[in-house]
Amino acid sequence: MRKYGRFTIPTQAGFAGETKELIRRWGADAIRNSDGTDLTDETASLGPAKIYATYFVARGYNAFAREHPEERQRIFLMSCRHTAVGAEVSFPIMEGYFDQQLEPDYDWDPEHNWEVRDRTRGTVVSHEYVSIKRESGTVTIQKTVPGHVYTLSFPAFINWDPTQMYNYITNDWKDRERDIPFDAHGELSWAYMKTALSHWLAQNPQVDVVRFTTFFYHFTLVYNTLKKEKYVDWLGYGAAVSPGALIGFEKEYGYKLEPEDFVDEGYYNNSFRPPRQQYLDYIEYIQRFVCERAAQLVEMVHEAGKEAMMFLGDNWIGTEPYGKHFQKIGLDAVVGSVNSGVTLRMIADIPHVKYTEARFLPYFFPDSFYPGAHPEVEAMENWLGARRAILRSPVSRIGYGGYLSLAAEFPAFVECVEHIAGEFREILDTIEGQSPYAPLTVAVLNSWGELRSWQSYIAAHGMVYKQTYSYLGVLEALSGMAVNVRFLAFSDIVENGIPEGIDVILNAGDAGTAFSGGACWKNETLLERLRMWVWNGGGFIGIGDPSAYPYQGRYLQLSDVLGIEQERGFTINEDKDYTKPVKVHFITEDVTEPIDFGECRRNGYALTPDCEILEYSHEEVRLGAHAFGKGRGVYIAGLPYSSQNTRLLLRSIYYAAGREKDLYRYYAQNPCCEVHGYRSCGKYALVNNSMEIQHTKFWDGAGAERTADLAPGEIRWMETEEA
Amino acid sequence: MRKYGRFTIPTQAGFAGETKELIRRWGADAIRNSDGTDLTDETASLGPAKIYATYFVARGYNAFAREHPEERQRIFLMSCRHTAVGAEVSFPIMEGYFDQQLEPDYDWDPEHNWEVRDRTRGTVVSHEYVSIKRESGTVTIQKTVPGHVYTLSFPAFINWDPTQMYNYITNDWKDRERDIPFDAHGELSWAYMKTALSHWLAQNPQVDVVRFTTFFYHFTLVYNTLKKEKYVDWLGYGAAVSPGALIGFEKEYGYKLEPEDFVDEGYYNNSFRPPRQQYLDYIEYIQRFVCERAAQLVEMVHEAGKEAMMFLGDNWIGTEPYGKHFQKIGLDAVVGSVNSGVTLRMIADIPHVKYTEARFLPYFFPDSFYPGAHPEVEAMENWLGARRAILRSPVSRIGYGGYLSLAAEFPAFVECVEHIAGEFREILDTIEGQSPYAPLTVAVLNSWGELRSWQSYIAAHGMVYKQTYSYLGVLEALSGMAVNVRFLAFSDIVENGIPEGIDVILNAGDAGTAFSGGACWKNETLLERLRMWVWNGGGFIGIGDPSAYPYQGRYLQLSDVLGIEQERGFTINEDKDYTKPVKVHFITEDVTEPIDFGECRRNGYALTPDCEILEYSHEEVRLGAHAFGKGRGVYIAGLPYSSQNTRLLLRSIYYAAGREKDLYRYYAQNPCCEVHGYRSCGKYALVNNSMEIQHTKFWDGAGAERTADLAPGEIRWMETEEA
Repeated sequence: MRKYGRFTIPTQAGFAGETKELIRRWGADAIRNSDGTDLTDETASLGPAKIYATYFVARGYNAFAREHPEERQRIFLMSCRHTAVGAEVSFPIMEGYFDQQLEPDYDWDPEHNWEVRDRTRGTVVSHEYVSIKRESGTVTIQKTVPGHVYTLSFPAFINWDPTQMYNYITNDWKDRERDIPFDAHGELSWAYMKTALSHWLAQNPQVDVVRFTTFFYHFTLVYNTLKKEKYVDWLGYGAAVSPGALIGFEKEYGYKLEPEDFVDEGYYNNSFRPPRQQYLDYIEYIQRFVCERAAQLVEMVHEAGKEAMMFLGDNWIGTEPYGKHFQKIGLDAVVGSVNSGVTLRMIADIPHVKYTEARFLPYFFPDSFYPGAHPEVEAMENWLGARRAILRSPVSRIGYGGYLSLAAEFPAFVECVEHIAGEFREILDTIEGQSPYAPLTVAVLNSWGELRSWQSYIAAHGMVYKQTYSYLGVLEALSGMAVNVRFLAFSDIVENGIPEGIDVILNAGDAGTAFSGGACWKNETLLERLRMWVWNGGGFIGIGDPSAYPYQGRYLQLSDVLGIEQERGFTINEDKDYTKPVKVHFITEDVTEPIDFGECRRNGYALTPDCEILEYSHEEVRLGAHAFGKGRGVYIAGLPYSSQNTRLLLRSIYYAAGREKDLYRYYAQNPCCEVHGYRSCGKYALVNNSMEIQHTKFWDGAGAERTADLAPGEIRWMETEEA
Repeated sequence: MRKYGRFTIPTQAGFAGETKELIRRWGADAIRNSDGTDLTDETASLGPAKIYATYFVARGYNAFAREHPEERQRIFLMSCRHTAVGAEVSFPIMEGYFDQQLEPDYDWDPEHNWEVRDRTRGTVVSHEYVSIKRESGTVTIQKTVPGHVYTLSFPAFINWDPTQMYNYITNDWKDRERDIPFDAHGELSWAYMKTALSHWLAQNPQVDVVRFTTFFYHFTLVYNTLKKEKYVDWLGYGAAVSPGALIGFEKEYGYKLEPEDFVDEGYYNNSFRPPRQQYLDYIEYIQRFVCERAAQLVEMVHEAGKEAMMFLGDNWIGTEPYGKHFQKIGLDAVVGSVNSGVTLRMIADIPHVKYTEARFLPYFFPDSFYPGAHPEVEAMENWLGARRAILRSPVSRIGYGGYLSLAAEFPAFVECVEHIAGEFREILDTIEGQSPYAPLTVAVLNSWGELRSWQSYIAAHGMVYKQTYSYLGVLEALSGMAVNVRFLAFSDIVENGIPEGIDVILNAGDAGTAFSGGACWKNETLLERLRMWVWNGGGFIGIGDPSAYPYQGRYLQLSDVLGIEQERGFTINEDKDYTKPVKVHFITEDVTEPIDFGECRRNGYALTPDCEILEYSHEEVRLGAHAFGKGRGVYIAGLPYSSQNTRLLLRSIYYAAGREKDLYRYYAQNPCCEVHGYRSCGKYALVNNSMEIQHTKFWDGAGAERTADLAPGEIRWMETEEA
């Protein structure tokens, strides 16, 4: 077993000796700096390690930014909502926003870009009734209708990069420059970006890998007056707007984007919103722009004999690694933060790069590394979650971040990481390049499809919300499950039909969101194709409010497939005759404790006696299955992540696909355990995903049954018995 | 105290002696028969009691009905939904319906009245692709689109009165005729109805009161193949349709009603559906028709020297006692079944009659009167619920129904009814004609307004559903609360503004229903008027999904008034900064146990720091208050009926109205107790609404504080101290 490689360690100035020791123990072959830490001359002396250097393209050059304030980055903001109670309403434009981050742009085509809306009527208020006072920073709207709500949309300059601002405030920096982001759409800025990189490359011969953090535009992150997050959208294109972008867009698409196209009633096109065509056009435009220009920078890096790596985060907007322009950038690698199976897959599945790298938790920061803490517990939990996903689709490398000196004070943690690094290398050496056993393919169906593979239900990256955990659990379960996973958009089906090779289609989300689909479920082509596909043998799993859109007498449009409808008040008058759960069922065979449906979408009921009710409580069906022609539908009211729910989903997939008899291959009966088979190398791994000892029956790839006792977190490699 | 009067007892043949004794003990001054029991000659001999006779107008004359089958009553039905999987779909027209109750009407303008709809596309399918086969009772639709859902709408004859059918099946009748309802819109039927009544009046001189059960059209109640309720709408006008009605309607309104106007996607315009104009026009038309013709029958009763009483139920459609045509009928009295404060008020508040009568529970049937049963417990609970309401708005009389002989076997029950009858007479003798102390007026705002006072959230009469109990609790609380209650429609406000004299407006219901309001909340006039009314000092209480309609960046349109919005997935990106409940608050001052929000509408959050959070759990605001100008909003996630919730609502009302300081008049601190003041007669009643002993502080009308210990269910009459 190799004791070296596939591992990146952070630098820390003045810690060279200890760093060397940790490099040895963890087998690190690369060393990196980060925002706020510098690569020192020491770094190069630390041994065989490759050197990664963080590089900022669009910030960190304040002298330039200050000389060209018109090329600062911009964002459209919406003011607070104000209810008029008389014929005039007046309020501060920047109310609620942090004025050190944001500054109104009064001069960029205010006739078009400054827009007052009557939010009660849904109309634009004529400029003749709007006066903007720069000195006081207020807007006054005249001829208001008492009882109507008004907002002002306006463009603002971003005077402080949001991530630098976060680090600045969190670390209580005092003497640093505040980074002003400048805009690649500005010709001076773009020229400067290239020149600056060129100089930097020349000045940093010791660097092997340029770690772009990232390219041009930060995801949407605006702060409130308390310097706290006011609005965050890790996928948001709000801060990619500029005069150049709008002109370029209009030239290409033949229509002009309006402030409301960005402001979107104040929802700013967050990814829960079913996307409108204008927004899809706009992000497509930005992606093309970003990828083309990023490609030029990467080309410079390559010419300097270095590798180009991209951090998936911060200023990543427009790169969309699963989008159709990403390949053009020509990156060697992508690195990203990983705190779950889903975030691991989000990195690992990225196509068109030579390698991927996962930055694991915990960060070596005092919040996890304090006297008496056990950071090795968090590290192990994080590892076990990620390991499931790695066994399906491995990243090429792993690493950690933060202050090494802090980590070094926790010997158990140091040992734990040594163990993780070893286990990771063992896995990679065994499975890299192999296709794991996955007899079924599941397609996750939502508004975003492949473009945002593994990126559903995100507001802030890696954060779980009350409204998302019952769906994120589905993706987390899938991230380490022995099935192939694809992401499919409603528009894919409408335009091209359901692709070959899919066994089960899964739709999970709250009604009206982009993840459930909203008005997409009125599209008859979508419904025709899905229904007939299931009728002819496909499986459809609906979680939460699947296919929810009130139309023509149904709320769940695929209720004929699912056998389940939701009571929303309009069918109280109908008798609900079918309420009796079946006694045993394939799907619930491994269930040992009450099923956790999380937020649990309410009021499901069975429409017909042939709906198999698998869980009925609180006068509602929470789990049901239903035959539809040769296919099947399965309804689940919500599915937070747990071993039991992962098993429930796996069995639902087999059931929906009508493949129950095939389950007992590479299968462990105990839901805390899983089996991953790699036929081409003749091996399989029996894993214990829990931190407790587990006993389980399991079946190998030939279907032979055995039992095993597994240590906490154990991974046991075995040879396959079959040819 | 009078020991006699205001009480109606049911007849039972061959039970004369015991009946006399019960008449004496209960002080009955009226005796009645019911469906399936006859008035015998004995009846007249039973003493001074008035005699009520049940009279059926539109059924019970089967010879006539059979002679004129074209004048049977009709209803539009929608078939089951069928998903086409090929180019043709075929199914039994009557699938799911009970063929002894319903029979397709193939001949009534089938080109117009038989309609196949593509429910996926939302369009009508041309008749050229539809073939109806009478012999087999099937429909075949050709040129179907695979994956589309189809329905057939069609008119059907009602061959069996649904109430008689219910009694027939429940009592296992065998040798009786099945009553065929005939239609007052048919000229022969109408003539026959008058003649039959005329004969009957002549033949029944002993009858004092003709108890119409009821007039012409039964509420919508259709049975399934198991002879169980398939669809029930106590307020439904489905069975009032006929060729005559449609012709008359078109003549008057200038447009033709379509099958879909009745079928309504399969929801049949139940009262949870925000009513469309066609339906409002149609029920207005039927009301006018029913009231005009019923008036003629009542006139005949009066001419015969008898009183006319109407049962509020069964064939009551079109009478709408709170509608603008009811007065025309000229009834002397209305009687109805009472199982709660709400149903009591539904009877007691009816205008334009001389008296009202409540038929109390339990019925003297074996389900409550079996060996070892304690029907007196149910009777007492029923009484205590109704008593609260009687103290606010009394019915004139009470009574029971069922088999007297059964009741007589339960001495404790007989005694209990004696007690109830006495207490009722005492209350009535004290308060009849008085206005109880009610310093505040609450208006319940929904789509139906005054027309359906106390009739919100009903599917079957008196039934409580999972989707309704959290709102019915509001009405139940109000039914016995020391406030005036009005019912207001959205259209009232839009057309005429908010009436004078209202202190608090209350909107309670699930999003999208007629009770919350659905798309009404897009109406800017409604919003202008409500907002400005609150701004100028009014109170607005929202329960469940108040003012819910997704539009222009808000889900709760009055979120500026309430200070609360609901997270529906589109504002996950916004920080929710305000989550800390206030420590003490006027509204929750009497709360002693965790508040029960019932079904509890989810995901409420505070928009601003000035929102007073009164309950925060499961990461959501479930109770909040908010100042808006001189007025206030209060948000409650749901409010099932309980003493504590009633108190919570009372305090919310005082708080919303800004009248906190006025609460301590005629007020008991213990939420199980209430005080009802009658200033004009100088008395007040301190009541214990519970069946346990209660101790309470209380305040009289002058605000003087005392304490009392009250026996279970006690009502204690006291003299007011003030002038």
